[in-house]
Amino acid sequence: MLTRQQAEGARRRAAAMLRDAGIVLTPEEASKLEIADCALGHLESEGLQLITYVNNERYCAKEIVLFPHQTFPQHRHPPVDGRPGKQETFRCRAGIVFLYVSGEPAAAPRCRPPEQSTEYYNVWHEIELGAGEQYTIPPDTWHWFQAGDQGAIVSEFSSTSTDDADIFVDPRVVRAPAVAG
Amino acid sequence: MLTRQQAEGARRRAAAMLRDAGIVLTPEEASKLEIADCALGHLESEGLQLITYVNNERYCAKEIVLFPHQTFPQHRHPPVDGRPGKQETFRCRAGIVFLYVSGEPAAAPRCRPPEQSTEYYNVWHEIELGAGEQYTIPPDTWHWFQAGDQGAIVSEFSSTSTDDADIFVDPRVVRAPAVAG
Repeated sequence: MLTRQQAEGARRRAAAMLRDAGIVLTPEEASKLEIADCALGHLESEGLQLITYVNNERYCAKEIVLFPHQTFPQHRHPPVDGRPGKQETFRCRAGIVFLYVSGEPAAAPRCRPPEQSTEYYNVWHEIELGAGEQYTIPPDTWHWFQAGDQGAIVSEFSSTSTDDADIFVDPRVVRAPAVAG
Repeated sequence: MLTRQQAEGARRRAAAMLRDAGIVLTPEEASKLEIADCALGHLESEGLQLITYVNNERYCAKEIVLFPHQTFPQHRHPPVDGRPGKQETFRCRAGIVFLYVSGEPAAAPRCRPPEQSTEYYNVWHEIELGAGEQYTIPPDTWHWFQAGDQGAIVSEFSSTSTDDADIFVDPRVVRAPAVAG
């Protein structure tokens, strides 16, 4: 679990990256930036920072901040209450993000999984997104992603977000935010 | 109807405003920026510029560019095929936008309707959005909006967009894009 100090440091760093990219948050939003280390204990290599702008029963929009080479673990969005799983469009705003999804594996992938977790990454169809580029991930599709050398800022446009329902390959992952008191 | 030259000028101006705000489009997106004068023939005062990032059967995301004091005419999004009308969240990214929706009228509204069209504007509940601020408009709610002195860039996150179904107060409005040959 992250200490409060670690979470605050990550929050400040993510807020600075957003500012540098010209993305404005209200002070209240900046103070609530979510730091998700997935309970893995190594945020710098696995996890992400995000702000949820809106999440209602029809649509959701978030801004995701990834530190250099930070990786979000492989997961999928299964059907929930008889509705298809979450569908999401990733639009890169700054930096570079590498997406890996089910499908034809890349011959020479540009990324490696975090060394503590290699056995929990097994889809290798690669999509590279630079600023202004986007990709839509169908519901219930295995995927993970990693930022390039400069980190990345990614807008996520999607159907309703139901993080609790997400299925991760790595059984250690806990998606709910947790910060030590 | 806009001439091709007028549309190209508006496209270049909108692309420059996006660049100034740090929002990156692909060259293909920039070349397809939609110029919507609503067939009213005075784009500078009534209309908008936009790029639709994604519009599928579950969600939609767009970037809207408004020139200084440019106004988008009053309209609502009615139910379509038994589904509630479009719900949309406007998030201001740069500049200022004034939203007017049904409800308690502002005592001293900051904006006036375009002078050619005053009779087609009649909701006056005012919401002012600066960069980083947002507001969600419920389905089937009358609304219109106008940019401040510097223009505005607004991200629109919403349920599926079905422009053809929109209902405008002004019977002259045609929402489908039209550019002279």
